[in-house]
Amino acid sequence: LNISVIGDGGWGTTLAILLSNKGYNVILWSAFEENALYINRHRENLKYLPGVKIPQTLKITSSLGFCIEDAEIVIFAVPSNHLRSVAGLLGRFNIQKKIILSASKGIEENSFKRMSEVLKEVLSLKQISVVSGPNIAMEIARGLPASTVVASENESMARMLQEVLITDRLRVYTSTDVVGVETGGALKNIIAIAAGVCDGLQFGTNAKAALMVRGMLEITRLGMAMGGKKDTFFGLSGMGDLITTCLSPNSRNRTFGETIAKGGNPLEMFSKSIMAIEGVRTAKATVHLALKYNVEMPITEQVYQIVFNKKDPTSAVDALMTRLAKTE
Amino acid sequence: LNISVIGDGGWGTTLAILLSNKGYNVILWSAFEENALYINRHRENLKYLPGVKIPQTLKITSSLGFCIEDAEIVIFAVPSNHLRSVAGLLGRFNIQKKIILSASKGIEENSFKRMSEVLKEVLSLKQISVVSGPNIAMEIARGLPASTVVASENESMARMLQEVLITDRLRVYTSTDVVGVETGGALKNIIAIAAGVCDGLQFGTNAKAALMVRGMLEITRLGMAMGGKKDTFFGLSGMGDLITTCLSPNSRNRTFGETIAKGGNPLEMFSKSIMAIEGVRTAKATVHLALKYNVEMPITEQVYQIVFNKKDPTSAVDALMTRLAKTE
Repeated sequence: LNISVIGDGGWGTTLAILLSNKGYNVILWSAFEENALYINRHRENLKYLPGVKIPQTLKITSSLGFCIEDAEIVIFAVPSNHLRSVAGLLGRFNIQKKIILSASKGIEENSFKRMSEVLKEVLSLKQISVVSGPNIAMEIARGLPASTVVASENESMARMLQEVLITDRLRVYTSTDVVGVETGGALKNIIAIAAGVCDGLQFGTNAKAALMVRGMLEITRLGMAMGGKKDTFFGLSGMGDLITTCLSPNSRNRTFGETIAKGGNPLEMFSKSIMAIEGVRTAKATVHLALKYNVEMPITEQVYQIVFNKKDPTSAVDALMTRLAKTE
Repeated sequence: LNISVIGDGGWGTTLAILLSNKGYNVILWSAFEENALYINRHRENLKYLPGVKIPQTLKITSSLGFCIEDAEIVIFAVPSNHLRSVAGLLGRFNIQKKIILSASKGIEENSFKRMSEVLKEVLSLKQISVVSGPNIAMEIARGLPASTVVASENESMARMLQEVLITDRLRVYTSTDVVGVETGGALKNIIAIAAGVCDGLQFGTNAKAALMVRGMLEITRLGMAMGGKKDTFFGLSGMGDLITTCLSPNSRNRTFGETIAKGGNPLEMFSKSIMAIEGVRTAKATVHLALKYNVEMPITEQVYQIVFNKKDPTSAVDALMTRLAKTE
């Protein structure tokens, strides 16, 4: 099986290593020639996956044509704000018969589209599968046990991709709820920023757990309005991913929130970060989606206020905790 | 309003302080005269809530008659294995007109009854309300923001108790799903032991989040078979409580699991602990309930094997992570 992985970030590189170690013929694409050359020579992705050995069998290239020419499966793992432009570069190749799997998480900033919707539109394809779950890349790269979810409207396609991705350390579940799996993976980053704020203010685990649960409930409300299924949000790709992101000391979105609570300037940090802080862009898009679908999202609203309107984090969390008590 | 709090553990003491600070006339009952005398004199519950000032207005006694004589509300906050015997002591007093609120979490070991069922039986009462949620006592005692759920089959009773408990730091939600609220609060302790094992083995946040979500799903399956409502399990008293217990460095059940993973002897630790490790007893009862209601509970089963049959924690978690992949 020939597999292309588009994007040499932590998650793309991890997937490429995992698939290469399974014996597939994998080519990893980097947008930058110097990165491709460095990884090729040193067998390490120093920037995004430091300390992890890259197998000799894994090919790395910055040539998109070389990467996807013979691929039967193309996996997209680029930040949400680059997906449209990168996918656009594939237009001149024949991709109609390839299987496309999106591993990107996010909502496009101005179109409010999910990643698979962006790919469908740009690539003129009818079917895009997605993979999403509680997946801190570095942990999987280091061989720690984990689980993830592959979703496709076509159940047999989901099962085929499950076989491709599964290892004895990575459990892969299938789903036909593409909307639910994808929105859970995107929106949890907003809640992770809020959880980070809670950490930074040292509000304790009672408050953090309450924020996570209430956050999941507002994601579920919006996700259901968008067509997702309720149970998906309480599964691995929903609550599971949210928990991992809110717990991990390495989560960029959580750390971003923590730093804000300790006095950091959110927009300055955002523009300076070399890694994607997806929750910032997603918060902006989600405030619009909440309006469009007429769904109440108090935590998203407060995160938006903190990040874009310099609202004081303490009063934002206070606003959440002292909302009128009501029936759960 | 006169309120009795039965049980001077961390949670009982915290509730008594909170209610006393709200201006109610509160009496806290300790099973041990020397504890009552010590707390009275030093205004500190050194054993279960060290470092927290106990207000002068809060009365402490080891006389059950004095404690409950004038009480309109009696709150039970004793460990699950003592609830039946302590409640039995109330038989000689007239309690038919008092409002009974259970703050105890657990499943009775041999009867497999919920705490409110035990109270109903022993006190010959028709209605018992319960309070449960993501509530590490020490955090609430220190004034950190938190939330909880009061459940009663009678909605106006739940709203009345909500008014009694609410403060500007403790948000109180109401529910009519007593079974759901109570089973969530009891069963999460089993999953917390598993999460602790995961911590002790340094399996990372991907694995821990997966365990928590799959654990919540098996609790939900059993809880629904017992009559609870699905949504309750994904709310504050279900998932919220589970998250807090699995996150808190101070959670006794989580720490118990962590210590086992590092080579500790579970039954020896259990018998030596001065604080209740509710998850151990609950695991035993739940294995029976799972059989009775014919519900698959793989995580509970593995926790039981680790604690009671000396199963090696690594192979137990391996058994969970390598179960056949299937649809979520």
